[in-house]
Amino acid sequence: MATPEQMEAAVLAYVAAFAAGDPEQAVAIFAEDAVVEDPVGTPPKVGHAAIREFYQASMATGAKLVLDGPIRLAEGHAAFAFHVPLHFDGKDMEIHVIDTFAFNADGKVREMRAFFGPGNMIAK
Amino acid sequence: MATPEQMEAAVLAYVAAFAAGDPEQAVAIFAEDAVVEDPVGTPPKVGHAAIREFYQASMATGAKLVLDGPIRLAEGHAAFAFHVPLHFDGKDMEIHVIDTFAFNADGKVREMRAFFGPGNMIAK
Repeated sequence: MATPEQMEAAVLAYVAAFAAGDPEQAVAIFAEDAVVEDPVGTPPKVGHAAIREFYQASMATGAKLVLDGPIRLAEGHAAFAFHVPLHFDGKDMEIHVIDTFAFNADGKVREMRAFFGPGNMIAK
Repeated sequence: MATPEQMEAAVLAYVAAFAAGDPEQAVAIFAEDAVVEDPVGTPPKVGHAAIREFYQASMATGAKLVLDGPIRLAEGHAAFAFHVPLHFDGKDMEIHVIDTFAFNADGKVREMRAFFGPGNMIAK
Protein backbone atom coordinates (compact mmCIF):
# COMPACT_ATOMS: atom_id res chain seq x y z
CA MET A 1 0.00 0.00 0.00
CA ALA A 2 1.30 3.44 -0.93
CA THR A 3 2.04 5.52 2.17
CA PRO A 4 0.73 9.07 2.64
CA GLU A 5 4.35 10.30 2.32
CA GLN A 6 4.81 8.50 -1.03
CA MET A 7 1.51 9.85 -2.35
CA GLU A 8 2.19 13.43 -1.28
CA ALA A 9 5.70 13.24 -2.78
CA ALA A 10 4.24 12.04 -6.10
CA VAL A 11 1.82 14.98 -6.27
CA LEU A 12 4.57 17.47 -5.44
CA ALA A 13 6.91 15.88 -8.01
CA TYR A 14 4.14 16.20 -10.60
CA VAL A 15 3.65 19.91 -9.84
CA ALA A 16 7.45 20.42 -9.83
CA ALA A 17 7.72 18.66 -13.22
CA PHE A 18 5.45 21.30 -14.76
CA ALA A 19 7.36 24.09 -12.99
CA ALA A 20 10.61 22.72 -14.47
CA GLY A 21 9.03 21.90 -17.85
CA ASP A 22 10.42 18.35 -17.47
CA PRO A 23 8.07 15.69 -18.92
CA GLU A 24 10.35 12.84 -17.76
CA GLN A 25 9.89 13.91 -14.13
CA ALA A 26 6.12 13.59 -14.62
CA VAL A 27 6.40 10.20 -16.37
CA ALA A 28 8.52 8.91 -13.47
CA ILE A 29 5.62 8.98 -11.01
CA PHE A 30 3.54 6.60 -13.16
CA ALA A 31 3.51 2.78 -13.27
CA GLU A 32 4.57 1.31 -16.66
CA ASP A 33 0.96 0.36 -17.45
CA ALA A 34 -0.67 3.49 -16.01
CA VAL A 35 -3.80 5.07 -17.46
CA VAL A 36 -4.15 8.85 -17.81
CA GLU A 37 -7.64 10.26 -18.54
CA ASP A 38 -7.18 14.02 -18.96
CA PRO A 39 -9.76 15.42 -19.10
CA VAL A 40 -12.26 12.78 -17.92
CA GLY A 41 -14.35 11.70 -20.90
CA THR A 42 -11.49 11.72 -23.43
CA PRO A 43 -9.64 8.61 -24.70
CA PRO A 44 -7.16 7.42 -22.05
CA LYS A 45 -3.40 7.50 -22.58
CA VAL A 46 -2.07 4.07 -21.56
CA GLY A 47 1.58 3.30 -20.72
CA HIS A 48 4.75 5.36 -20.43
CA ALA A 49 5.19 6.11 -24.15
CA ALA A 50 1.69 7.57 -24.58
CA ILE A 51 1.94 9.38 -21.24
CA ARG A 52 5.34 10.86 -22.16
CA GLU A 53 3.95 12.18 -25.44
CA PHE A 54 1.00 13.71 -23.61
CA TYR A 55 3.15 15.57 -21.07
CA GLN A 56 5.62 16.69 -23.71
CA ALA A 57 2.72 18.36 -25.50
CA SER A 58 1.16 19.75 -22.28
CA MET A 59 4.40 21.25 -21.04
CA ALA A 60 5.24 22.70 -24.46
CA THR A 61 2.38 25.15 -23.84
CA GLY A 62 4.25 26.45 -20.77
CA ALA A 63 1.49 25.33 -18.41
CA LYS A 64 2.30 25.60 -14.68
CA LEU A 65 0.19 24.15 -11.85
CA VAL A 66 -0.71 26.27 -8.81
CA LEU A 67 -2.10 24.11 -5.99
CA ASP A 68 -5.28 25.36 -4.32
CA GLY A 69 -5.67 24.06 -0.78
CA PRO A 70 -4.26 20.93 0.81
CA ILE A 71 -3.64 17.68 -1.05
CA ARG A 72 -6.30 15.16 0.00
CA LEU A 73 -4.92 11.69 0.82
CA ALA A 74 -7.23 8.69 1.18
CA GLU A 75 -6.28 4.99 1.21
CA GLY A 76 -4.21 4.47 -1.95
CA HIS A 77 -5.53 7.67 -3.52
CA ALA A 78 -4.73 11.37 -3.72
CA ALA A 79 -6.85 14.26 -4.99
CA PHE A 80 -5.81 17.86 -5.42
CA ALA A 81 -7.28 21.11 -6.73
CA PHE A 82 -5.19 23.53 -8.76
CA HIS A 83 -5.37 26.19 -11.42
CA VAL A 84 -3.27 26.90 -14.48
CA PRO A 85 -2.73 30.59 -15.27
CA LEU A 86 -2.64 31.29 -19.00
CA HIS A 87 -2.75 34.12 -21.48
CA PHE A 88 -5.46 33.43 -24.04
CA ASP A 89 -6.90 35.66 -26.73
CA GLY A 90 -5.24 38.73 -25.18
CA LYS A 91 -6.68 38.04 -21.73
CA ASP A 92 -5.33 36.67 -18.44
CA MET A 93 -7.28 33.46 -17.80
CA GLU A 94 -7.18 30.50 -15.42
CA ILE A 95 -8.21 26.89 -15.93
CA HIS A 96 -9.44 25.28 -12.69
CA VAL A 97 -8.84 21.54 -12.43
CA ILE A 98 -9.09 18.70 -9.89
CA ASP A 99 -6.85 15.66 -10.44
CA THR A 100 -7.18 12.27 -8.76
CA PHE A 101 -4.33 9.75 -8.54
CA ALA A 102 -4.81 6.04 -7.71
CA PHE A 103 -1.61 4.33 -6.53
CA ASN A 104 -0.35 0.76 -6.82
CA ALA A 105 1.34 -1.10 -3.96
CA ASP A 106 4.76 0.26 -5.05
CA GLY A 107 3.65 3.86 -4.64
CA LYS A 108 3.44 4.49 -8.41
CA VAL A 109 0.38 6.14 -9.99
CA ARG A 110 -1.71 3.50 -11.78
CA GLU A 111 -4.56 5.82 -12.79
CA MET A 112 -4.79 9.60 -13.16
CA ARG A 113 -8.02 11.44 -13.93
CA ALA A 114 -8.36 15.19 -14.53
CA PHE A 115 -11.75 16.81 -13.90
CA PHE A 116 -12.42 20.03 -15.79
CA GLY A 117 -14.38 21.31 -18.75
CA PRO A 118 -15.02 24.41 -20.87
CA GLY A 119 -16.78 26.19 -17.99
CA ASN A 120 -13.62 25.94 -15.88
CA MET A 121 -11.65 28.36 -18.06
CA ILE A 122 -12.41 31.71 -16.48
CA ALA A 123 -11.15 35.30 -16.58
CA LYS A 124 -8.67 36.06 -13.84
CA MET B 1 -25.69 12.58 -20.97
CA ALA B 2 -25.99 14.80 -17.90
CA THR B 3 -25.71 18.49 -18.79
CA PRO B 4 -23.32 20.88 -17.00
CA GLU B 5 -26.41 22.62 -15.57
CA GLN B 6 -27.77 19.34 -14.14
CA MET B 7 -24.40 18.42 -12.66
CA GLU B 8 -23.83 21.81 -11.06
CA ALA B 9 -27.38 21.79 -9.65
CA ALA B 10 -26.74 18.36 -8.10
CA VAL B 11 -23.57 19.55 -6.35
CA LEU B 12 -25.32 22.68 -5.05
CA ALA B 13 -28.32 20.62 -3.86
CA TYR B 14 -25.90 18.33 -2.02
CA VAL B 15 -24.20 21.26 -0.25
CA ALA B 16 -27.64 22.77 0.50
CA ALA B 17 -28.84 19.45 1.95
CA PHE B 18 -26.06 19.60 4.56
CA ALA B 19 -26.81 23.28 5.25
CA ALA B 20 -30.46 22.35 5.87
CA GLY B 21 -29.64 19.11 7.70
CA ASP B 22 -31.98 17.32 5.28
CA PRO B 23 -30.74 13.80 4.38
CA GLU B 24 -33.61 13.26 1.93
CA GLN B 25 -32.44 16.21 -0.17
CA ALA B 26 -29.03 14.52 -0.45
CA VAL B 27 -30.54 11.11 -1.31
CA ALA B 28 -32.61 12.73 -4.07
CA ILE B 29 -29.54 13.49 -6.22
CA PHE B 30 -28.58 9.78 -6.38
CA ALA B 31 -29.71 7.03 -8.76
CA GLU B 32 -31.55 4.15 -7.05
CA ASP B 33 -28.52 1.86 -7.48
CA ALA B 34 -25.86 4.50 -6.74
CA VAL B 35 -22.60 3.69 -4.99
CA VAL B 36 -21.15 6.00 -2.31
CA GLU B 37 -17.51 5.44 -1.26
CA ASP B 38 -16.85 7.95 1.55
CA PRO B 39 -13.99 8.04 2.26
CA VAL B 40 -12.30 6.21 -0.63
CA GLY B 41 -11.00 2.87 0.68
CA THR B 42 -14.01 2.14 2.92
CA PRO B 43 -16.86 -0.28 2.08
CA PRO B 44 -19.25 1.36 -0.39
CA LYS B 45 -22.82 2.20 0.49
CA VAL B 46 -25.02 0.88 -2.34
CA GLY B 47 -28.59 2.00 -3.05
CA HIS B 48 -30.93 4.58 -1.58
CA ALA B 49 -31.54 2.84 1.77
CA ALA B 50 -27.85 2.53 2.64
CA ILE B 51 -27.14 6.02 1.30
CA ARG B 52 -29.99 7.50 3.36
CA GLU B 53 -28.68 5.86 6.52
CA PHE B 54 -25.20 7.21 5.79
CA TYR B 55 -26.37 10.82 5.33
CA GLN B 56 -28.67 10.65 8.32
CA ALA B 57 -25.62 9.78 10.43
CA SER B 58 -23.35 12.35 8.73
CA MET B 59 -25.82 15.19 9.14
CA ALA B 60 -26.57 14.24 12.75
CA THR B 61 -23.03 15.49 13.53
CA GLY B 62 -24.05 18.96 12.30
CA ALA B 63 -21.51 18.85 9.44
CA LYS B 64 -21.77 21.70 6.91
CA LEU B 65 -19.88 21.88 3.61
CA VAL B 66 -18.03 25.05 2.57
CA LEU B 67 -17.05 24.94 -1.12
CA ASP B 68 -13.47 25.94 -1.92
CA GLY B 69 -13.07 27.18 -5.48
CA PRO B 70 -15.19 26.46 -8.54
CA ILE B 71 -16.99 23.17 -9.18
CA ARG B 72 -15.12 21.27 -11.90
CA LEU B 73 -17.39 19.81 -14.60
CA ALA B 74 -16.08 17.23 -17.07
CA GLU B 75 -18.09 14.97 -19.39
CA GLY B 76 -20.59 13.18 -17.11
CA HIS B 77 -18.53 14.00 -14.01
CA ALA B 78 -18.19 16.70 -11.37
CA ALA B 79 -15.45 17.26 -8.79
CA PHE B 80 -15.39 19.81 -6.01
CA ALA B 81 -13.17 20.80 -3.10
CA PHE B 82 -14.63 21.80 0.24
CA HIS B 83 -13.97 21.89 3.95
CA VAL B 84 -16.09 21.04 6.96
CA PRO B 85 -15.57 23.27 10.00
CA LEU B 86 -15.87 21.39 13.29
CA HIS B 87 -15.18 21.74 16.97
CA PHE B 88 -13.12 18.78 18.14
CA ASP B 89 -11.38 18.17 21.44
CA GLY B 90 -11.82 21.82 22.46
CA LYS B 91 -10.31 23.15 19.23
CA ASP B 92 -11.61 24.71 16.01
CA MET B 93 -10.67 22.27 13.24
CA GLU B 94 -11.40 21.76 9.55
CA ILE B 95 -11.59 18.59 7.46
CA HIS B 96 -10.54 19.20 3.84
CA VAL B 97 -12.22 16.92 1.29
CA ILE B 98 -12.55 16.51 -2.48
CA ASP B 99 -15.66 14.70 -3.78
CA THR B 100 -16.18 13.32 -7.27
CA PHE B 101 -19.63 12.57 -8.74
CA ALA B 102 -20.21 10.37 -11.81
CA PHE B 103 -23.61 10.92 -13.43
CA ASN B 104 -25.92 8.63 -15.38
CA ALA B 105 -27.75 9.68 -18.54
CA ASP B 106 -30.69 10.96 -16.46
CA GLY B 107 -28.51 13.41 -14.54
CA LYS B 108 -28.55 11.36 -11.34
CA VAL B 109 -25.34 10.56 -9.43
CA ARG B 110 -24.40 6.91 -10.03
CA GLU B 111 -21.11 7.02 -8.09
CA MET B 112 -19.76 9.34 -5.41
CA ARG B 113 -16.25 9.15 -4.01
CA ALA B 114 -14.84 11.27 -1.16
CA PHE B 115 -11.08 11.78 -1.00
CA PHE B 116 -9.67 12.58 2.45
CA GLY B 117 -7.78 10.96 5.28
CA PRO B 118 -6.48 11.58 8.81
CA GLY B 119 -3.93 14.14 7.57
CA ASN B 120 -6.74 16.30 6.19
CA MET B 121 -8.12 17.19 9.62
CA ILE B 122 -6.20 20.33 10.50
CA ALA B 123 -6.32 23.15 13.06
CA LYS B 124 -8.12 26.20 11.72
